[in-house]
Amino acid sequence: MHNENQIFVPADVPEKKHDVFIKNYHAITRNTDRLFLFSCDHKIEHLNHDFYGATINSQALHPEHLFRIASQGTIGAMATHLGLLARYAKQYPNVNYIAKLNGTTHLVSCEQQDPKSMLLWTVDDVISFKEENKLMVSGIGITVYLGSEYEAEHLFQAAQAIMQAHKAGLVTVVWMYPRGKAICQETNPQLIAGAAGLALSLGADFVKIKMPEATNMVSSTQALKIASAAAGNTKIIYSGGEMINAQDLLSQLYENIHHADVAGIAAGRNIFQRSLAESIILTQAISAIIYDNVDLKVAIAHLNQLHATP
Amino acid sequence: MHNENQIFVPADVPEKKHDVFIKNYHAITRNTDRLFLFSCDHKIEHLNHDFYGATINSQALHPEHLFRIASQGTIGAMATHLGLLARYAKQYPNVNYIAKLNGTTHLVSCEQQDPKSMLLWTVDDVISFKEENKLMVSGIGITVYLGSEYEAEHLFQAAQAIMQAHKAGLVTVVWMYPRGKAICQETNPQLIAGAAGLALSLGADFVKIKMPEATNMVSSTQALKIASAAAGNTKIIYSGGEMINAQDLLSQLYENIHHADVAGIAAGRNIFQRSLAESIILTQAISAIIYDNVDLKVAIAHLNQLHATP
Amino acid sequence: MHNENQIFVPADVPEKKHDVFIKNYHAITRNTDRLFLFSCDHKIEHLNHDFYGATINSQALHPEHLFRIASQGTIGAMATHLGLLARYAKQYPNVNYIAKLNGTTHLVSCEQQDPKSMLLWTVDDVISFKEENKLMVSGIGITVYLGSEYEAEHLFQAAQAIMQAHKAGLVTVVWMYPRGKAICQETNPQLIAGAAGLALSLGADFVKIKMPEATNMVSSTQALKIASAAAGNTKIIYSGGEMINAQDLLSQLYENIHHADVAGIAAGRNIFQRSLAESIILTQAISAIIYDNVDLKVAIAHLNQLHATP
Amino acid sequence: MHNENQIFVPADVPEKKHDVFIKNYHAITRNTDRLFLFSCDHKIEHLNHDFYGATINSQALHPEHLFRIASQGTIGAMATHLGLLARYAKQYPNVNYIAKLNGTTHLVSCEQQDPKSMLLWTVDDVISFKEENKLMVSGIGITVYLGSEYEAEHLFQAAQAIMQAHKAGLVTVVWMYPRGKAICQETNPQLIAGAAGLALSLGADFVKIKMPEATNMVSSTQALKIASAAAGNTKIIYSGGEMINAQDLLSQLYENIHHADVAGIAAGRNIFQRSLAESIILTQAISAIIYDNVDLKVAIAHLNQLHATP
Amino acid sequence: MHNENQIFVPADVPEKKHDVFIKNYHAITRNTDRLFLFSCDHKIEHLNHDFYGATINSQALHPEHLFRIASQGTIGAMATHLGLLARYAKQYPNVNYIAKLNGTTHLVSCEQQDPKSMLLWTVDDVISFKEENKLMVSGIGITVYLGSEYEAEHLFQAAQAIMQAHKAGLVTVVWMYPRGKAICQETNPQLIAGAAGLALSLGADFVKIKMPEATNMVSSTQALKIASAAAGNTKIIYSGGEMINAQDLLSQLYENIHHADVAGIAAGRNIFQRSLAESIILTQAISAIIYDNVDLKVAIAHLNQLHATP
Repeated sequence: MHNENQIFVPADVPEKKHDVFIKNYHAITRNTDRLFLFSCDHKIEHLNHDFYGATINSQALHPEHLFRIASQGTIGAMATHLGLLARYAKQYPNVNYIAKLNGTTHLVSCEQQDPKSMLLWTVDDVISFKEENKLMVSGIGITVYLGSEYEAEHLFQAAQAIMQAHKAGLVTVVWMYPRGKAICQETNPQLIAGAAGLALSLGADFVKIKMPEATNMVSSTQALKIASAAAGNTKIIYSGGEMINAQDLLSQLYENIHHADVAGIAAGRNIFQRSLAESIILTQAISAIIYDNVDLKVAIAHLNQLHATP
Repeated sequence: MHNENQIFVPADVPEKKHDVFIKNYHAITRNTDRLFLFSCDHKIEHLNHDFYGATINSQALHPEHLFRIASQGTIGAMATHLGLLARYAKQYPNVNYIAKLNGTTHLVSCEQQDPKSMLLWTVDDVISFKEENKLMVSGIGITVYLGSEYEAEHLFQAAQAIMQAHKAGLVTVVWMYPRGKAICQETNPQLIAGAAGLALSLGADFVKIKMPEATNMVSSTQALKIASAAAGNTKIIYSGGEMINAQDLLSQLYENIHHADVAGIAAGRNIFQRSLAESIILTQAISAIIYDNVDLKVAIAHLNQLHATP
Repeated sequence: MHNENQIFVPADVPEKKHDVFIKNYHAITRNTDRLFLFSCDHKIEHLNHDFYGATINSQALHPEHLFRIASQGTIGAMATHLGLLARYAKQYPNVNYIAKLNGTTHLVSCEQQDPKSMLLWTVDDVISFKEENKLMVSGIGITVYLGSEYEAEHLFQAAQAIMQAHKAGLVTVVWMYPRGKAICQETNPQLIAGAAGLALSLGADFVKIKMPEATNMVSSTQALKIASAAAGNTKIIYSGGEMINAQDLLSQLYENIHHADVAGIAAGRNIFQRSLAESIILTQAISAIIYDNVDLKVAIAHLNQLHATP
Repeated sequence: MHNENQIFVPADVPEKKHDVFIKNYHAITRNTDRLFLFSCDHKIEHLNHDFYGATINSQALHPEHLFRIASQGTIGAMATHLGLLARYAKQYPNVNYIAKLNGTTHLVSCEQQDPKSMLLWTVDDVISFKEENKLMVSGIGITVYLGSEYEAEHLFQAAQAIMQAHKAGLVTVVWMYPRGKAICQETNPQLIAGAAGLALSLGADFVKIKMPEATNMVSSTQALKIASAAAGNTKIIYSGGEMINAQDLLSQLYENIHHADVAGIAAGRNIFQRSLAESIILTQAISAIIYDNVDLKVAIAHLNQLHATP
Repeated sequence: MHNENQIFVPADVPEKKHDVFIKNYHAITRNTDRLFLFSCDHKIEHLNHDFYGATINSQALHPEHLFRIASQGTIGAMATHLGLLARYAKQYPNVNYIAKLNGTTHLVSCEQQDPKSMLLWTVDDVISFKEENKLMVSGIGITVYLGSEYEAEHLFQAAQAIMQAHKAGLVTVVWMYPRGKAICQETNPQLIAGAAGLALSLGADFVKIKMPEATNMVSSTQALKIASAAAGNTKIIYSGGEMINAQDLLSQLYENIHHADVAGIAAGRNIFQRSLAESIILTQAISAIIYDNVDLKVAIAHLNQLHATP
């Protein structure tokens, strides 16, 4: 699993930027081919709904909570919008960041209008921000809504952003979500595999997809393994989704890593809706599975540190 | 409250522009972290409806009334469109200005078409105007209609304007208004908090929001306090709205400053629909609460100066 | 009324262009603050309907008729599209021109699609045309349809054109017309006053509006005076509209100049639908009221020159 | 009719390009003010329908047929799309070409969507193509659908293309067609006259219009004469339309030249749907009327050469 | 058939790039005027549907399968999206590539929205990619949906891409597909012939069309021959379509080459849905017909090598 010496550098990264790309790739994969992405784009995507509510720890209301977790926990990279980075990243310089370029709120329903998530910042904005502040911005993230009536615009901006990012040696992550009036079932296995393969055709290094649903033909894990094959040398990270029990999260992660060929997880709500102390422990357990290749039992045992401490 | 030495400079302001940003920030916050914005974009937004009518002082019909108040009263900054600045600001050089970049009339209803307020001027236009005329243009203002079918365009232009303004050391204020066919209740507390948090993700220094409505869960003040938390280090100023009794305005302001963690108010109609003499006194009373941190009683007593003079 | 020495130069005209602006302003206002605009954009706006028909002098069918009037009559400036200027202006070099930048035909009704009048030429096109040909192009004209679903595009191009024109020392005139499915009554007094105030916020020097209708509250003249106040230091010229009796036209003009604070008239059909001889006399009578400040009787008497000559 | 020395050069042609413009104008007008345009844009506009069918000569199926006619016949200029020129023009270097810039197929009906014919190539593309290949590309052609919901886009691109072409000394021809849901009768006399006048306002040298219909007020010839007047110094060429009897075509042309003040004809199907031999003879007969000013009988007699030869 | 010395170079290829164009043209036509295109854009166009299913060889699920075939088989060029090239082409440097510039998924049906396949990469992206990696990228590919409500955008981007590619000496291939609500029958003979002729008017070197349907007037082969004539000096390659029996595929190809004047085939699913061993043999048989001009029997006999080997 550890793969320190052989990193695949895509051909749209120019020779003179190979070193930068390899450094960025190593930083977020911790010298493996795996990735634990701490996903934090929800303040645009879901407004306040993921940060304040009955089941959510009250610390989550404060945006700095996200950066405290990223800084004190153990993650591959924190992905969030460039605007938010401009307000907190300099205070947390030890974190690897993935700058998210686009975003949209959930306010307009698909019935009213198909999803349209347009660039808010360019790759050049990310590069000049990174250079000005000497921060570890290792890559860019971008969402594509395939099947939307605005699919053409999404595909264009993703293809261009990936190529531009690669020209600067940045790693690229595509959030690939089928959505819109044309999409009956967002997590259909063949659709998810197609979405993963499309990310490959766009030239992405990593693709973030939702877990495919089980059918009477394939289990969810088998479907994910097919998607991993369809993605070729683009690596899959799956979405953690809504907050679930921490042990279940780890079990699912272990299964997907070891039996579905995925490279890791993109988890957000599952982490930041907990207290800082709990979040930190959970990031450590996730990283142990992804980066240290520990057994599931070891990872779950790690969770007990929290209760042990007091 | 006074905070002369510690000003937060966002990371998209380059090093060489820190001095300029700090100077602009100090100018409009008067060496506090608070802001009294004299909001004057109504000649585009509401056409003549806020300037002529039964309950409006006849002086308001004359556009110069706005600049006389700004110049003779006590405010943080006057916010208005760059076109209007081009016609009066040089005659009133002692005022701090926030140049509003976009605007739309109220003529087309949401039922007909979702709101679409596109840039009329660029940040570069503001900068060259400022430099040519040596005026105190301290920042830029921009409106975002979230939940509109044109949300993507609003988010893009706001994110870009904020980053460009910061590159030049200008302070940024976002008018963040949920509006459109998808929005049932513009002042829903969770929605308002989300709007404030979105402004943070765009990188804004200040966000102007409407007062959230009270629900059977939270009072209006409590809701505003939640929004202030959600906005993180982006500071909230709330909209004064339609003209109300001056004492009520001051009471509400005092409450919001001291119990809802807001940084100030954006008041327009509440000021300019009065006579010049009344307006001046009222700006002094507001500034006393915001900038001098006086007790409510002291501020209200100040209003009596008007009647005392003759 | 005469005001040779004090010309207001807007702040978006750079210092080094003040002389040019003042020269252009003097040229079309004849050293007053008033303006007689000979409006000739109808070949795009109304196609052939204003040039050929039962009540129209047959000379009007020939486009050169417009330039003969402008050259032999007495006007402030002739406003027409840059394309038409390219075909006749060099043959009539003694005329002051206002280059109209946008235009649309009347063919598509508001019921089918809201009005959309997009730029056909840029301010740079006007400037290079003027410099190449050493013609007296004193300013630019642009139409804004407020209340249209394309209002945003109109406002953007007008704000930008005004600022760019001012940067080159050109005078700016905005045709401000509320129109579209959202507009019930185009000449409502409060709406017209709002339109005039909006032109001010765009930074225009002159705004062309239609005469507001009388209501049971205000006469048409009173309504126009309110609009003049709302426009601040942007000066109003009102539309002459369809051809009426020449004496009535002069009476209305005198009334509006002296009791409604307008700066002049924009007349087209009222002039060019007459014979060349009649047109010339009429422009002289209009100019006498606007520029020479004569009594109405003197102006009307001037009309008799026509009948006197033979 | 011959007018070798006095050519009108529009004012948007810069001084240094006067020679080029005059040379181009002379080339296609053969030192008159008249124009015989061999119109060949049908492979985009009508796909294969004008080139293959029961009444069409089988030679027409081969695209080179068009260039053979242009090269061996007698015409003013051949108008076709730049893409087609790139594939045949160099093999036929003795032809004057007008490069058509836009085009659309007939597939989408007006009921489904109003016509939208957008630029496929820019004027700069034409200029660099011409210079690279030392070909006689004398001008540019562009279609405007007035009355379409996309009228604004058509007007903009036509106005800009004309001005840019003139800056390079190229002659300009506008196809001016009223079309769309708003147009009840495309060949209404007043509408056609308006279309011709609009071309003038766009600055075009020549305007191609359809023959206006006769009404109970005016004959078709009278209506065309009115349109010629409305077009001012922009010259009218009328569309030949579907293939008709050759003698009828010549009679109509003679009538329109001598009694309706038109400058010539734009004929395509009437020529290329015949055999090469017939086409050549017909172009000679048309040119005799247009350029040599022969009597109708002389022109018709020329047609007999074809039957005489064998 | 072999045509080593006479290559037609279109006139929009500049003199200094003739050598490059000839080299690229020779590379993919193997010194003939024919082309065997291995078409591999399906991971965007059809997502995972062509790569995983009951009748599809399991090797097809892995994207590298496509490159193995291209590298070990015998083809003219492999056409695929630039993003996919960035991830595999450098590992397979012996293949001639055609970089596909646009793409869209099949998710949104024509009933919901007419097809819209916008550029994902520019010609400049292709050129810099090619130069950086010293790969044999011989040309560009682009799809046009004529008859779509977005036809104008497709035509524009195709015309521009062809001209830009030619300027760099790249060969151009247009996928010309009538599609949308306006299209009743995509494979109507006259429509297909028109599509081929339109590609000529855009300046393309090769046009990929679907086989026209037989009617009671013409057979499918006759219809294809008419289309070949309508395309002039733009050469036709027809789409192989869904996987069929290998012998039938070869028979059809032989017929179309020798009796319908086509230049070759664009085959994808017919090749890659088979095992690597079968695919390789099939590409050899196809190339034997196209490039070596062998008899059909010889080609079919070649297929037996596969079964012979074990």
